[in-house]
Amino acid sequence: QDLAKTAAKNAKVVLDNDEVRVIELNMPPGATTGMHSHQDHVVVFLTGGKARQTDASGAVKELERKAGDVAWSGPVTHDTKNESATAVRTLVIELKK
Amino acid sequence: QDLAKTAAKNAKVVLDNDEVRVIELNMPPGATTGMHSHQDHVVVFLTGGKARQTDASGAVKELERKAGDVAWSGPVTHDTKNESATAVRTLVIELKK
Repeated sequence: QDLAKTAAKNAKVVLDNDEVRVIELNMPPGATTGMHSHQDHVVVFLTGGKARQTDASGAVKELERKAGDVAWSGPVTHDTKNESATAVRTLVIELKK
Repeated sequence: QDLAKTAAKNAKVVLDNDEVRVIELNMPPGATTGMHSHQDHVVVFLTGGKARQTDASGAVKELERKAGDVAWSGPVTHDTKNESATAVRTLVIELKK
C-alpha cells in the first residue's frame, strides 16, 4: 500500500523523479497513516513528537524524535500513529534505486 | 572537494550508509561552504533563508527558501554563502547509487 494513498488527507508528494520520491506528512494528534509499505527511505522530522509504529506482524515500536532528527529505514510495512499532543510534520524520502 | 571537509566547522555527518550520506549544515550569517561537489542529492531546509551559490564557472544564483522546503539537485560544484541575517540549518541527503 502506498503511504500517499493510505494517509492521503495528511500526505503531499513534494518531489518525485526517477531517483527519489519525497512525501510531506502533516499528522494531527492521534492520526494514523494506515498500513503502508516502503522501500529504503530516510525520514526527516521537521517537528519533534512521539509515535507508535505497528508492523505487519503486529509488533509495536514506540518512537520519540526531536525536530531535525534524521532516521534511515530499510524496506518495511507498518502503520504509524501520532501519539503527541501536537501535529507532527515529517518528510519521507523514498529511494527508487 | 567534500562538503563535510570544506565546511567542516559548520557541517556534521548525521547518517552514512551504503545508500546515502546525510550532512547537517548549520551556517551562521555570512558563512560560506567553500567550493565543493555533490552527486545527485536532496536538500531539506530546516530553517528558511537566503543564499548565494557560485558554481565552478563563476555563475551566480540567488536562492530564497522557507523552513520545510525540499530541493533536488543533480551533480554540481558550487560554493554557497548564507546571505540571511540568521543562521540557516539544512540537511544535504547525498545519494550514493
